[in-house]
Amino acid sequence: MEKELKKDFMNKAISLALENVESLKGGPFGAVIVKDGRIVGSGNNQVTLLNDPSAHAEIMAIRDASRNLDTFDLSGCEIYSSCEPCPMCLGAIYWARLDKLYYASTKDDAAAANFDDSYIYKEFALPKEERKLQSVQMMRDEAVKVFEEWVHSENKIPY
Amino acid sequence: MEKELKKDFMNKAISLALENVESLKGGPFGAVIVKDGRIVGSGNNQVTLLNDPSAHAEIMAIRDASRNLDTFDLSGCEIYSSCEPCPMCLGAIYWARLDKLYYASTKDDAAAANFDDSYIYKEFALPKEERKLQSVQMMRDEAVKVFEEWVHSENKIPY
Repeated sequence: MEKELKKDFMNKAISLALENVESLKGGPFGAVIVKDGRIVGSGNNQVTLLNDPSAHAEIMAIRDASRNLDTFDLSGCEIYSSCEPCPMCLGAIYWARLDKLYYASTKDDAAAANFDDSYIYKEFALPKEERKLQSVQMMRDEAVKVFEEWVHSENKIPY
Repeated sequence: MEKELKKDFMNKAISLALENVESLKGGPFGAVIVKDGRIVGSGNNQVTLLNDPSAHAEIMAIRDASRNLDTFDLSGCEIYSSCEPCPMCLGAIYWARLDKLYYASTKDDAAAANFDDSYIYKEFALPKEERKLQSVQMMRDEAVKVFEEWVHSENKIPY
């Protein structure tokens, strides 16, 4: 894809971030999803507007593109994000099977603006027992049975 | 909290997972969010039902609890998930500021049932340049300016 076109897409993502700052509608983050040279989805951060901690720009863009293309599989698409995705959004990018990620500012830039991205990345790198988030396992046997049902279900829709 | 009550909450999460397998409405995952000894939100996987790659059980439960409690900050709440959260959902748990995570089956159990959890965890542990997902930085200067606007914005809602 032409370099100028890539710049147009990233400019759009950054504009969405800036619009949020100006409208006070959410955090300073924007993203667009592109397929075959055109934008098929876009999103801006709406955490505080929707009271939804998962409403980051990349996730909103993935949901928008999935709705527009009527599929949960965005193979063949690329995402342009105004900032390096946090672990939640990077995970969503993998689940959506996006082909490629373009990003502008970094997680450390986000941290400098008081967002928790770097902190969460550091937590991820620690063994479970050393993380701030306590986690406790229980009732594995009961839960594994559900996976067995799933594996043997003949009409399931895998993803 | 009493051990029996914890078991009730995890049973509810596992039941939501099982209902999904039986109704064919989504993947075999369920989660509930608990505050002060009662369930304030619940979710089941709806990726294929909604065409939303982010519609994992934990994220649906976080969205539900946030809506019910009218806040994006779920401090003071705990989550019970039928399976160890994937990186996307673990990230969402951090952003929602949940106090504690209880989980039943593991990411390896999920992998054995053909879900990508372990694969995504392995990708996260690699340096960016070694991941399957290509990522490219561009236009950092333009994006950093948006963070500067945010930092100096007087009426913003931080999260």
